[in-house]
Amino acid sequence: MPKTDIARRVYNHTWKLDPICRSLLDTDFYKLLMLQMIWGLYPHVDATFTLINRNKKVFLADEIDEGELREQLDHARAIRFSKKEMIWLAGNTFYGRKQIFQPEFLNWLADFRLPEYELKRDGGQYELNFHGRWMETTMWEIPALAIINELRSRAAMRALGPFALDVLYARAKAKVWSKVERLKKLPDIKISDFGTRRRHSFLWQRWCVEALKEGIGDSFTGTSNVLLAMDTDLEALGTNAHELPMVLAALAKNDEELRASPYKVLQDWQSYYGGNLLIVLPDAFGTESFLRDAPSWVADWTGFRPDSAPPIEGGERIMEFWRQHGKDPRDKLLIFSDGLDVDTIESAYRHFNGKVRMAFGWGTNLTNDFEDCAPREINGLKAISMVCKVSKANGRPAVKLSDNPEKATGDPKEIQRYLKLFGAQNRMSRAVLV
Amino acid sequence: MPKTDIARRVYNHTWKLDPICRSLLDTDFYKLLMLQMIWGLYPHVDATFTLINRNKKVFLADEIDEGELREQLDHARAIRFSKKEMIWLAGNTFYGRKQIFQPEFLNWLADFRLPEYELKRDGGQYELNFHGRWMETTMWEIPALAIINELRSRAAMRALGPFALDVLYARAKAKVWSKVERLKKLPDIKISDFGTRRRHSFLWQRWCVEALKEGIGDSFTGTSNVLLAMDTDLEALGTNAHELPMVLAALAKNDEELRASPYKVLQDWQSYYGGNLLIVLPDAFGTESFLRDAPSWVADWTGFRPDSAPPIEGGERIMEFWRQHGKDPRDKLLIFSDGLDVDTIESAYRHFNGKVRMAFGWGTNLTNDFEDCAPREINGLKAISMVCKVSKANGRPAVKLSDNPEKATGDPKEIQRYLKLFGAQNRMSRAVLV
Repeated sequence: MPKTDIARRVYNHTWKLDPICRSLLDTDFYKLLMLQMIWGLYPHVDATFTLINRNKKVFLADEIDEGELREQLDHARAIRFSKKEMIWLAGNTFYGRKQIFQPEFLNWLADFRLPEYELKRDGGQYELNFHGRWMETTMWEIPALAIINELRSRAAMRALGPFALDVLYARAKAKVWSKVERLKKLPDIKISDFGTRRRHSFLWQRWCVEALKEGIGDSFTGTSNVLLAMDTDLEALGTNAHELPMVLAALAKNDEELRASPYKVLQDWQSYYGGNLLIVLPDAFGTESFLRDAPSWVADWTGFRPDSAPPIEGGERIMEFWRQHGKDPRDKLLIFSDGLDVDTIESAYRHFNGKVRMAFGWGTNLTNDFEDCAPREINGLKAISMVCKVSKANGRPAVKLSDNPEKATGDPKEIQRYLKLFGAQNRMSRAVLV
Repeated sequence: MPKTDIARRVYNHTWKLDPICRSLLDTDFYKLLMLQMIWGLYPHVDATFTLINRNKKVFLADEIDEGELREQLDHARAIRFSKKEMIWLAGNTFYGRKQIFQPEFLNWLADFRLPEYELKRDGGQYELNFHGRWMETTMWEIPALAIINELRSRAAMRALGPFALDVLYARAKAKVWSKVERLKKLPDIKISDFGTRRRHSFLWQRWCVEALKEGIGDSFTGTSNVLLAMDTDLEALGTNAHELPMVLAALAKNDEELRASPYKVLQDWQSYYGGNLLIVLPDAFGTESFLRDAPSWVADWTGFRPDSAPPIEGGERIMEFWRQHGKDPRDKLLIFSDGLDVDTIESAYRHFNGKVRMAFGWGTNLTNDFEDCAPREINGLKAISMVCKVSKANGRPAVKLSDNPEKATGDPKEIQRYLKLFGAQNRMSRAVLV
C-alpha cells in the first residue's frame, strides 16, 4: 500500500468532532434497570444531578476547554437509541430473563434524549448540573463522567509525541496483561468490568474488555457497559445505585419515613426485578444502621454489594447478618466494587473463598490505570475521584452518608440530621483514590 | 505514530485464513423468507443445488486454488447465527411487519449450520454440489457464490503492486460515484442493492452500500444483504426466487400438477407473507404461459418481478395483464432486477415513470464493476455469470426455462418436456453477461 491513505488522512485531519459518547447504550446497565423503575414509579419526581470533583487539587476547568466540553455534551444530547439498539434491548436476555424491559417503557425510551445541562466555570472548577425529571436527568451520570474523563486524558496526551504515545499504550497494555495473568491464577473467580464512568477513553475500555475476554475466559462474566455487552456478545451486568435510597430519603416527609426509606427502595425494586438482580446496596446511610433496622426479608435477597466499607470487614459484617437470620452465606453472593485492584481482589478472594459466593466489579483500576506509563509524569493521566450524584429531589437536599465519611455527599447540616437519625457506628475514614 | 504498528503487522502477516463468509446473515434476505416456508411446508423434501458457470471460457479451477476453496467452504460450515443476530431477526421489523419469523422457526435456525458440500475438479472447472434436505442446501446458494467470486478477485489481484491496487479501488470508487450522480437526477427513483452473490468482495459491497446511502439518500431503499442491513440500519429487501417453482414443478406427479405448480407456489407463499412481499416471479417456465394460465387472483398481488425478459417489453406485458384484469398499473409495483446498470435503469425509469410504481434491484454492476479499473486488462476481475441452482428435487430433475433461453437450466430432455407443456411463446435470446 502507499504509505498514506490520502482520503483517510484528510478525513482524520478535517473532522469537526471526535465524539466521546456515540450511543445512548454507552452507559452502565444499572442505569437502564433503575430508569425503568423510576419511569414506572416516580415519573413526576424532579432530581438534580451534580458533578462532584472530590479531588480539589485537580482544576478541571484549567485542564479541559469549556468549548470542547460543551461540544461533547451537545453531541451527547443529539443521540437517540438506534433501531438495532432498541431491538437488542427488547430481545436480549438479561440476567437469564427475557423481556426484562416492558414494551411501554421501551416505547418511551425510543424517543429518549438527554435533557439540558447547566455548565458554569467557577474558578478552576466546573459547576455542572442537570435539572429536571429524575427519569431524564439520571441518564446523564455516566456520559457526563465519561466525557469529562476522556477530555481530560485527551488534553493530557497532547503533550506527547508519536513514539511517546505508542509507548504509553504499550506499557498500559502490558500492565493490564500482567493483572490478567495474576487473576488467571485464582480458580473460578468471577470478575466483570465496571469501568465505564472513569475510563481513560471508550476505545481503551473496549481494549481492556476484549483483553479480559481473551485472557481470563469464563472468569470474565461481563461488563456494565451496555454498548460493549451488545457489541461483544458479553453479559450486561449491574443492579442498582445510591441514587434510589438518596431520592427516597430526600422525599421522606418525616423521620419515620426517612428511617424506612432504605427498605422502601428494596420493595420498589422487588416489584420489578428478581433472582440475581436482588442485590442490596446497604451503605447509603451506613451499613451498620441498615443491618440493625432491616426487616428479616432483607436476608432473603440474593446478595449484598458493600460499596464503601473495607472488603473484608464489610463482607464479614454482612455474613454475620445472614447467619443471624439463619442463612448460610455459601448460598449468598457478595459483590465487591469499591476501588478494587488486583491486590484487593486477591486478598478478598483468598479470605472469602469457600465461605460465600462472590463477584468483583472492577472499575477505574482496570480501565484507567496509566501510572508509570508515560515517559514522564503527567498528572492529567491519573484517574481522579469524580462522581455525578443526585443533589436534590423535588427541591429537597439529597444526602449520602456512606461507610466512609470521605465519600459522603450533600449539605453538611442535612448530613448531621441523617447522622443523628441513622447513627455513625462503624464508619471509618479511608482515602478515596478513585 | 510510528510508521508501522508492529502488533497489527504481525497479526496481518501470520493469520491462517481471511474468511469470506463471516456470518450466516451474510446472505440474501429472500433466502430466509423462503427458508421459513420450506421449513414449514417442505421439511422432508431433498434438493440438490449445483454450481453452474455459464461462462465456459472462464476456467474456475485454474483461477482458484482448490485448497483455498475448501478452507473457505469449511469455514462457512463452522459458522452459527450469533446471539445478537438471532435477537435482531426476532425483533426487527421487515417489510413493515414485526415478528415475520415464527418463534419455532427461529428456534430451529439458532442451531442451523450449512450442510456438507461435494467438490470435484473436472478439467478446468469445479463440480460443486450440495445434497440433502432442501431446507439446508438452499442456504448454500449465496455463500457458495460469494466465496467463489471473492476468491477469484483475490487471485486476480495478486498480480498487482501496491500502487496498482490503490488506483484500482480509486477508479472503481470514482465509477460507482459517477453512477450515483446519474441516479440522483431521477426524482423519487427507488433503488436497492441486490449484489451479494456476485460481488467483488464483502468489503467492497459494504463500500458500495454505504456510498449509495450517502449518495442518493432516501432513493436508496435498502439491501438484500441481511448482515449489511443489520449493521447499517437499512431495510433488508427481497421476496422469492426460482427455486420455489422449480422444486414444486419437479415434484409434480403429472402434467396437470406440473402446469399448476407456478400458482401452487404463490398460494404457499401467501400462507406466510402479505403486503409488499406478494411479488410474483413469473418467468420460471416462461412469462407468457404464466400469464395466459394465471388464475385471476394473481392480479391481486402487489407486484411482479420480471427477471429475464427485457425490462420495457417485460414490464409492458405485465401491465397489459393487470389491465386485462381491471387493475390500474399505477397501484401496482414492478421490480426490475435482471442485469441492471445505470443505462437500463434510466431507460426503464423514463419509460415507466408515472405509469406504474417501480423499484430496481441493482446487482452485479453495482458491486462488481471493475471494468477499465486495473492498470492492464485482468480477466479475473470481470464479473462472470455464475449461478447456484436447484438441479434435483427428491431425485427428480429440476428445470428452469426462463424468458431467455440462455438462462435456462436443467436436463435438455426435461427442458423439451417443459417447453412442450408450457410453450415457448415470446422467449427471446439475449446474451447473459452477469
